[in-house]
Amino acid sequence: MFMEITILRLGHRLPRDERISTHVALVARAFGASSFVYSGQIDHGLEESIERICESWGGSVNGSLFSVCYEKNPLSVIKKFKKSGFVILHLTMYGVSITSALEKIKISKEKEKLLIIVGSEKVPGEVYQLADYNISITNQPHSEVAALAIALDRIQEGKELSEKGFDFKGKIKIVPTEKGKKIVENQS
Amino acid sequence: MFMEITILRLGHRLPRDERISTHVALVARAFGASSFVYSGQIDHGLEESIERICESWGGSVNGSLFSVCYEKNPLSVIKKFKKSGFVILHLTMYGVSITSALEKIKISKEKEKLLIIVGSEKVPGEVYQLADYNISITNQPHSEVAALAIALDRIQEGKELSEKGFDFKGKIKIVPTEKGKKIVENQS
Repeated sequence: MFMEITILRLGHRLPRDERISTHVALVARAFGASSFVYSGQIDHGLEESIERICESWGGSVNGSLFSVCYEKNPLSVIKKFKKSGFVILHLTMYGVSITSALEKIKISKEKEKLLIIVGSEKVPGEVYQLADYNISITNQPHSEVAALAIALDRIQEGKELSEKGFDFKGKIKIVPTEKGKKIVENQS
Repeated sequence: MFMEITILRLGHRLPRDERISTHVALVARAFGASSFVYSGQIDHGLEESIERICESWGGSVNGSLFSVCYEKNPLSVIKKFKKSGFVILHLTMYGVSITSALEKIKISKEKEKLLIIVGSEKVPGEVYQLADYNISITNQPHSEVAALAIALDRIQEGKELSEKGFDFKGKIKIVPTEKGKKIVENQS
């Protein structure tokens, strides 16, 4: 199990990627990452949306803040994480299947830190070279939001869907119901 | 295994949902659904995007066309599918965990047809009542794109990620590679 997961979203464009990048960040949080870094265009609206969600629903899975930050130079971010011992995983439809890649990654028990790169339209060739693993979630065109969700689900071995799920210690939480909606103030 | 899966996307809004609904439709196709129906505002751009993808990458998993169509009245669509013997599954953060729900659904072997409803901001209460199962993919706020991907992944038991994956019989396909990009004309 990876102890610390950061998501790096490349090439955010306004207004085109406003909602897609927001969904990427929300998936990152809900599926167990602890921070979200993005490059491309600065987007205060995106940052505020995520902060508002965390304010009500809680931070990240380990009880700390879920951090969101902008970085101008994504290649230097990748290099910095690599130097700090993070395994670098790049999600791309051109890569090898996550199923086979995860078998290799999991052998190395020291690798407890993971940087997952989520591309946009044009990903620089250097990203493919810097990544330890270029990984596909099917080789069909679909969505970086879906790819990240499936990747984190497989990496966390479905823990986010288990009966208790992750505990975000938010102000509010949902009580699952068969019909309708039930939100309660969190007592835990 | 479900033999026929249709996705119903509710309340599409322009321009707000342009890309999100497109991603929902692409996930539907890539993860094994055979058709996509949407309500809300008509969006010819969305329909053309999906048709363009199918033109190059192939139709749906069973070799037929992946159909995209607009329906003005989603409640009547749900009722029609229900009458035709489809199991109605509604993805909502308020629902019960997909893990527990799938155990129940899979017991019934006659149920080979599935309609999965993907909501937008305000889902009418009647949808919760009409659905056979209101199912959550975590009870945290994230993304309908991610929720649909995880739901289809669980329903198809990860088949889309298996070594051979689905065969879409498209004009082009990707050869998975460790670094870089390789697209070939499909010879199969």
